[in-house]
Amino acid sequence: MAVYTDVSDEELEAFIASYAIGGLTSFKGIAEGVENSNYLVHTETGRYILTLYEKRVARQDLPYFLALMEHLAARGITCPLPVRDREGRTLKELAGRPAALITFLEGLWVRRPGIGHCSGLGEALARFHVDGADFPMHRANSLSLPGWAALFASIGSGADNVTPGLAREIDKELLHLEQHWPADLPQGVIHADLFPDNVFFLGDKLSGLIDFYFACNDKLAYDVAVCLNAWCFEPDGSFNVTKARALLQAYESVRPLSPAELEWLPTLARGAALRFLLTRTYDLLNTDANALVKAKDPNEYLRKLRFHQRVKSYRDYGLGEH
Amino acid sequence: MAVYTDVSDEELEAFIASYAIGGLTSFKGIAEGVENSNYLVHTETGRYILTLYEKRVARQDLPYFLALMEHLAARGITCPLPVRDREGRTLKELAGRPAALITFLEGLWVRRPGIGHCSGLGEALARFHVDGADFPMHRANSLSLPGWAALFASIGSGADNVTPGLAREIDKELLHLEQHWPADLPQGVIHADLFPDNVFFLGDKLSGLIDFYFACNDKLAYDVAVCLNAWCFEPDGSFNVTKARALLQAYESVRPLSPAELEWLPTLARGAALRFLLTRTYDLLNTDANALVKAKDPNEYLRKLRFHQRVKSYRDYGLGEH
Repeated sequence: MAVYTDVSDEELEAFIASYAIGGLTSFKGIAEGVENSNYLVHTETGRYILTLYEKRVARQDLPYFLALMEHLAARGITCPLPVRDREGRTLKELAGRPAALITFLEGLWVRRPGIGHCSGLGEALARFHVDGADFPMHRANSLSLPGWAALFASIGSGADNVTPGLAREIDKELLHLEQHWPADLPQGVIHADLFPDNVFFLGDKLSGLIDFYFACNDKLAYDVAVCLNAWCFEPDGSFNVTKARALLQAYESVRPLSPAELEWLPTLARGAALRFLLTRTYDLLNTDANALVKAKDPNEYLRKLRFHQRVKSYRDYGLGEH
Repeated sequence: MAVYTDVSDEELEAFIASYAIGGLTSFKGIAEGVENSNYLVHTETGRYILTLYEKRVARQDLPYFLALMEHLAARGITCPLPVRDREGRTLKELAGRPAALITFLEGLWVRRPGIGHCSGLGEALARFHVDGADFPMHRANSLSLPGWAALFASIGSGADNVTPGLAREIDKELLHLEQHWPADLPQGVIHADLFPDNVFFLGDKLSGLIDFYFACNDKLAYDVAVCLNAWCFEPDGSFNVTKARALLQAYESVRPLSPAELEWLPTLARGAALRFLLTRTYDLLNTDANALVKAKDPNEYLRKLRFHQRVKSYRDYGLGEH
């Protein structure tokens, strides 16, 4: 969770009254979501999440994220739906911050996903890619190759304070990826952060996707690579090839990967691992001692990166010959 | 909010299955409550708060708190009701900690209470005192005079790091209260922490009381004094005698204060101010830089203490001659 913005009684009341959702009956800060302040809102007519966007989310990107949720929901993807106020607006302001009210989604995120969860995730990811194909807006991925290089430049040798030798290892990997990064893979809207805490299940059934605040236009297979990293490693660092196979086969049941996407998958997985290694390293080095957010361990992603460096082909991810 | 205890999928599922409340549909950490970890739980049959008791709440006191909630709810006080599991237990264990599931209470706490809120609070406090009269269990107030002296002994001259001269000022006040503390006022179950964030309203109507984890047996009028401190000062430090009058008159409409209680009210208010001055000073000096809890300002209660030191009689709190 992020630092909580203090909302006064009067501001909150006026904000809720600007929607046709009845009177407020409950308002509680919730402890999920690292980038923004989130509140659970009950009114006489329903349950909602109120998000106040803190500084790490660029205000000019918010219309993209909110319109994407509306686009996906209209195509049957279960995701939060931004609520329109009495004047039809979804992006508003509260307590001096950009703010939006979205519908509450039932479901639980799975702390330790099993094979069935990976399968559900793979299918949902592919549907997201297919349904996002005609989304008309565009947002560049600020956390792709050039963004990684810029982030590393701002970290520099500080990385060695996280793990000795880390700066050199990142430098080498960046150089490798700059020389070996695919150019012509199928592009579209990607979620870019589809970690287990952004995927809800009811029992074994996937019930929805949340947190679209890293969504952007990029290579679709890169999104698959992010998920391989986030869903298919065990707590001891080992790669669970059965989970990866389940994820990829379910993905391909909806959207088959092209031969080029398969060929580049190990490289994309290295890039995805490097992306989270870099942001976690940056966050760890820049976390204010008073911050409410607990920094995540960068070394988890260093181990994942090293795994993908040793991978020879997509077949190492559990897929048979295509 | 407190540090969050990590609950595994399996533990949580088994815990919820031990109650007859249907399957789990949502589980979110909430950011309220300083002492414990609280989660909002939705199941197929209702909404609940799951509390994991962290170290500051003594395990042996939990049966008192839970039984008190059941006692009060049975007498019509709107407060969370501990849910009994299939074996009739309210106090359980989860993730190695004492845990309880209580019903979810609709309502909002008021960031800046008005006169009407103070009136509602006064009436509810008196009903709490009346309805608690036949509660059979007993718990001493660990944060009364002897507790304050012990707390001050552990703080010592460190108080001067909060405000220069504070240690001497606390020392003098403690000495005064030890020599002038009432012995024979009416006793009973008190809430002892009925701050605005523990009182819910729906519109202007009080809808419930929460957070009974400081409740104990002590002088009833001390509870009134806690509320005078917590509800009747403005953000600029001034005392709002209109709010105090509203609180006290509403209290007396249910339970009139005795002449002795009225006579001792300024002293009890000094004690209540000292209690929060001491705990806030202790918390500020002992807050780990990594703690998720933001320490509250002790000086707010130093100013309140000084106000009560200048009070000559209960009439200064807005009550007419009795």
